[in-house]
Amino acid sequence: MTTARAYTATSATDPLVPTTIERRPVGPHDVLIDIAYSGICHSDISTVRGDWGPISYPLVPGHEIVGTVAQVGSEVSRHRVGDRVGVGCMVNSCRECVNCLAGLENYCLNGATFTYNSIDRDGTPTQGGYATQVVVVEDFVLSVPESIPFEAAAPLLCAGVTTYSPLAHWKVGPGSKVAVVGLGGLGHLAVKFAHAMGAAVTVLSQTLGKKDDGLRLGADHYYATSDASNFTTLANTFDLIVNTISAPIDVQAYLSLLALDGTLVNLGAPAQPLPVSVFALMGNRRSFAASSIGSIAETQQMLNFCAEHAIAPEIELITAADINTAYERVLTSDVRYRFVIDAATL
Amino acid sequence: MTTARAYTATSATDPLVPTTIERRPVGPHDVLIDIAYSGICHSDISTVRGDWGPISYPLVPGHEIVGTVAQVGSEVSRHRVGDRVGVGCMVNSCRECVNCLAGLENYCLNGATFTYNSIDRDGTPTQGGYATQVVVVEDFVLSVPESIPFEAAAPLLCAGVTTYSPLAHWKVGPGSKVAVVGLGGLGHLAVKFAHAMGAAVTVLSQTLGKKDDGLRLGADHYYATSDASNFTTLANTFDLIVNTISAPIDVQAYLSLLALDGTLVNLGAPAQPLPVSVFALMGNRRSFAASSIGSIAETQQMLNFCAEHAIAPEIELITAADINTAYERVLTSDVRYRFVIDAATL
Repeated sequence: MTTARAYTATSATDPLVPTTIERRPVGPHDVLIDIAYSGICHSDISTVRGDWGPISYPLVPGHEIVGTVAQVGSEVSRHRVGDRVGVGCMVNSCRECVNCLAGLENYCLNGATFTYNSIDRDGTPTQGGYATQVVVVEDFVLSVPESIPFEAAAPLLCAGVTTYSPLAHWKVGPGSKVAVVGLGGLGHLAVKFAHAMGAAVTVLSQTLGKKDDGLRLGADHYYATSDASNFTTLANTFDLIVNTISAPIDVQAYLSLLALDGTLVNLGAPAQPLPVSVFALMGNRRSFAASSIGSIAETQQMLNFCAEHAIAPEIELITAADINTAYERVLTSDVRYRFVIDAATL
Repeated sequence: MTTARAYTATSATDPLVPTTIERRPVGPHDVLIDIAYSGICHSDISTVRGDWGPISYPLVPGHEIVGTVAQVGSEVSRHRVGDRVGVGCMVNSCRECVNCLAGLENYCLNGATFTYNSIDRDGTPTQGGYATQVVVVEDFVLSVPESIPFEAAAPLLCAGVTTYSPLAHWKVGPGSKVAVVGLGGLGHLAVKFAHAMGAAVTVLSQTLGKKDDGLRLGADHYYATSDASNFTTLANTFDLIVNTISAPIDVQAYLSLLALDGTLVNLGAPAQPLPVSVFALMGNRRSFAASSIGSIAETQQMLNFCAEHAIAPEIELITAADINTAYERVLTSDVRYRFVIDAATL
């Protein structure tokens, strides 16, 4: 067993507090990681506050983890002590269902084991990355290329693959017209990826407040969704709209912006169903879809893509003492563009 | 000008009545068709009863037309006097928008000219196929292969292409698992097409009342949707679900039946938006889509496919005097599987 320092939620309403947690002994296929940095994801907040349903406390959130391999099990072949590695939203899956066998553990039909708020294969609740160490089975540990700044690499493990995966799946490339709804932690990465893939990229944001940033990040166009006339201007335009907003959107309005065979893909999930007009889908044979993170293979592919194209998230590095303030700032969209916790301060 | 006998709606509530209508003179690119048979589509009823919004009366419905070419314009090259031909839901389109230029007139961005309840290029309201003659520009007139029984060919022009198009677009073939929701005019053709394309076909119907028919038509499995346990049994199963029901369905329940990257495609359009859970879309990266009839090229492809695979709708031939009774029977699903009007009785 390893005792790690951590920050934990003890209820849906109290601030997170320092604690210590036990990590399991390193098994034959396990990797012990000294965590260096851990990103703060909007879903950490949704989970600990019970927005997606009641959970068990105490809970250590965090699923955007990078660190250095401190120890490996006897059978481990993919990683060595000293390697720069990362862990994302999943630490295991059933490995038996048709989706796992197809290499898409993120769609595991028996439910992937998530990095926190899941029950691990040994029957214990998983605890996440706001901690100094973690033990993860080697297949779910990614290699982080040396050229990606270490602290900036953390958000790639969730925000990165969550945006990369739908862009890759819907075959974005030169000639594609892609819109990104919301320029936050996910949105700013979606812009960078889509631009690097060769697409013409449009940001659709509530206001023009981040327009300069958007264009600097790689967007070709930037429109305020608060101006209804833009929905007329942009009608029938996009092949893919990537919606990074977790709050409910006006699905009809965004569907109307899709060209023939276009898809509106949601990356966030509002708790309530959204009303969808079938007539809006019928025009241009549109689709409304959703995408959930990405597979382990795809996460590695994304990290390699980042190294190749010199892509990294824009982050604000914080200490553990800043976590609760950071949560409030995430909820008011006051972050450019991702908070990352320096694990040395835990 | 040609005077045709016809059946027309004079209000949203009164029965259809016999009348005569004028067809335009045969222009250089026009074909005059002596109508032989005309199918009754559910959308005829929705339109004349104002379910999709107010319309102008009198209106002659009907967009499942087959007949014989009686006269051709001086520039016509695609059809000759005496040819067996058909006309579906469209009689023209803008021919300029990106979708028309891509050969998908059914998604014309300026609005295709529909066979009835549209304004024709000459500024007059279009009147449909419950008539003895019609004049249509040659590009929107299909060739009906000799091997398809003439009266049974009529429903192919709408119900046929409406079901064939999504099966072809979503690449149904050997190995595909396809579910067809509803075994009516559209559903029974979807079963025949999907079976002929090599898919494993499941019918999802309210009850098991038409099970024998469904299996005879080519379905491999047949389940009653009134039994909620079937939604558990069939979870994560289908690559494509073709929903032929116009009334609102429980979208979540049907989405749960889709396998990885599966699509639920609506062919009918309820007037009200449907609530869609993004969580249900996220599992298995599912899509909710809709499809609207098919292009002219695809309609010809479908007719040729029918000839090649000996596919024809199952119909009940009626006289003009039966039209109003047939409408009531369509609304109570009391038809196996399409009413076709013998135009000689108009």
